[in-house]
Amino acid sequence: MTTATLTIDLSAVAANWRALNAQTEVETAAVVKADAYGLGIGRVAPVLAAEGAREFFVAVAEEGVALRRVLGPGPRISVFSGHMAGDADLIRDTDLTPLVNSVDQLLLHVETLPGHPFGLQLDSGMHRLGMTPAEWSAVRDIALAQRPTLVMSHLACADTPDDPMNATQLQTFEELTQGVDAPRSLSATGGILLGDAYHYDLTRPGIGLYGGLPYLDAFPVVTLDLPVIQIREVAVGGCVGYAAAWTAERPSRVATVSAGYADGLIRAMGPKATVTCNGMKLPVIGRVSMDLITVDVTDLTEAPRDLQLIGSHQSVDTVAGFSDTIGYEVLTSLGARYDRIYLA
Amino acid sequence: MTTATLTIDLSAVAANWRALNAQTEVETAAVVKADAYGLGIGRVAPVLAAEGAREFFVAVAEEGVALRRVLGPGPRISVFSGHMAGDADLIRDTDLTPLVNSVDQLLLHVETLPGHPFGLQLDSGMHRLGMTPAEWSAVRDIALAQRPTLVMSHLACADTPDDPMNATQLQTFEELTQGVDAPRSLSATGGILLGDAYHYDLTRPGIGLYGGLPYLDAFPVVTLDLPVIQIREVAVGGCVGYAAAWTAERPSRVATVSAGYADGLIRAMGPKATVTCNGMKLPVIGRVSMDLITVDVTDLTEAPRDLQLIGSHQSVDTVAGFSDTIGYEVLTSLGARYDRIYLA
Repeated sequence: MTTATLTIDLSAVAANWRALNAQTEVETAAVVKADAYGLGIGRVAPVLAAEGAREFFVAVAEEGVALRRVLGPGPRISVFSGHMAGDADLIRDTDLTPLVNSVDQLLLHVETLPGHPFGLQLDSGMHRLGMTPAEWSAVRDIALAQRPTLVMSHLACADTPDDPMNATQLQTFEELTQGVDAPRSLSATGGILLGDAYHYDLTRPGIGLYGGLPYLDAFPVVTLDLPVIQIREVAVGGCVGYAAAWTAERPSRVATVSAGYADGLIRAMGPKATVTCNGMKLPVIGRVSMDLITVDVTDLTEAPRDLQLIGSHQSVDTVAGFSDTIGYEVLTSLGARYDRIYLA
Repeated sequence: MTTATLTIDLSAVAANWRALNAQTEVETAAVVKADAYGLGIGRVAPVLAAEGAREFFVAVAEEGVALRRVLGPGPRISVFSGHMAGDADLIRDTDLTPLVNSVDQLLLHVETLPGHPFGLQLDSGMHRLGMTPAEWSAVRDIALAQRPTLVMSHLACADTPDDPMNATQLQTFEELTQGVDAPRSLSATGGILLGDAYHYDLTRPGIGLYGGLPYLDAFPVVTLDLPVIQIREVAVGGCVGYAAAWTAERPSRVATVSAGYADGLIRAMGPKATVTCNGMKLPVIGRVSMDLITVDVTDLTEAPRDLQLIGSHQSVDTVAGFSDTIGYEVLTSLGARYDRIYLA
């Protein structure tokens, strides 16, 4: 087999949810947008439901439809993008809960689906999604009279605990929601770790479930093993890969490995990346190709059958560092060609 | 609808194949690996077959299986990674043609599937896939006696016509294949443009079919329109997005748009990217989120419903430049959430 093997430890996802749930006294939801951060909503969501999650969050209504098929009736599925024009049938037929982001969306919702559940998203300073304070003050009483399922906001800097923006957003959210009876929510994974004041009635962990920072204590979820296609000797001065970007400075052995940027090995990682073999780090050399990378395996005594990019020796966040990005992007970039193995 | 719309012009793919076919006197194949460079092998490959392509190339055997289902019996499907351990059944049952890369693969092939067609991949200097000259010289006579379907190599620097590596690889390939009766192939899109000497018996265009450089004259294939979720006023000093990475220096209007790095909007593009509205360029501001980007739309007189990332005003390669990568990676990163529309 030439496709790489992506192993996803569902028991680690479950353990991460339990651990994040244990960090608070309040309800713990699960964010499963972007196909459960690239890991497969069809396999991940049922495990979280079995652990006790009853509140799920997705980015767009179409994801909610897919999730409803997986979960069946019962669990609430809230949609961060809210109620978009044309979505009323989807929202009604699959019992989705849009998180209304603006006065326009609120009007659209109550006009097209009167009485259908909705939540409210407020902008506490990130200026990305949610009603501005001015909008909110104009419609607050009307909106609350409709008994929203949730009043929520999102932190811009929760991954940086010391950032003063966190306290500012907390204070703004507190002011915006004074006297609100509906359940309130402010925090995703990072916010959970900021402490009780940030927990309100419901937390919304995402990245922490999937083993990524800022949740340092997360159980790792993903292992990515890449098969070696062939190994060649390269003499001193020999160049490897596109644009002949790497030149051998010693007699070298180079492994050509089956995975490339079409599989989510972000092309920019090229010169800084390593893979591992039994814990030994080996440099990726030359450019990342669409379907292939090349690795200097000169220091190995035996020819490897596989090399590991993500696993116990290199975390998702370590790999993210190779291309100056974040673990979230590494996960959501994982490609469709992998042979996916789920550990129960 | 909140998902973005990816429009793929199949007639442009067909026109690009015809134009590249017309550039040579020899057979023109089609490279459809990585799900036809992200555009959907199930829709792209039949169009190419209808144009007359009879030779298709994929990266791994599993892709070949999917392609055989699409094309049915008849067209040859060659596999760049060659014959990997465990693939014999797939190769036989779906009539794939592995491009054998090493003596090990050659032995595996003739032992497990004697008489089954195969091609040979030679390393003419890229040092990535293919037999080294030493291996080749050891097995050449035996291998050629088995009547391979193709003897091929791949250029490392074809996208840079002036690179002396091209002539060096041409000469090496010429020397390695002197007296070979089997059809020979050296060039993908870039090599086609280098001229007749590089064409041999079969060319293997990939990126050029899909509208990307180095094929300057390609018809554009992809349009990507992103729906606006909401538009907000941001006062001077207001910050937008994660890490509060952008600060308004004038009273601004900011659109929050439904697509992010989980959809293949490479996160590194953030600060350099623009989108367009009726041809007007608008800056992407703040960080690219998983499902969202934010755009400064202050200079628009009307609120847009959609903003365009890829289309007639910004090519795939322009967008690649926003994150210092290549059009190939932009295409193969296009995500699964888009509503895909195919123009016939």
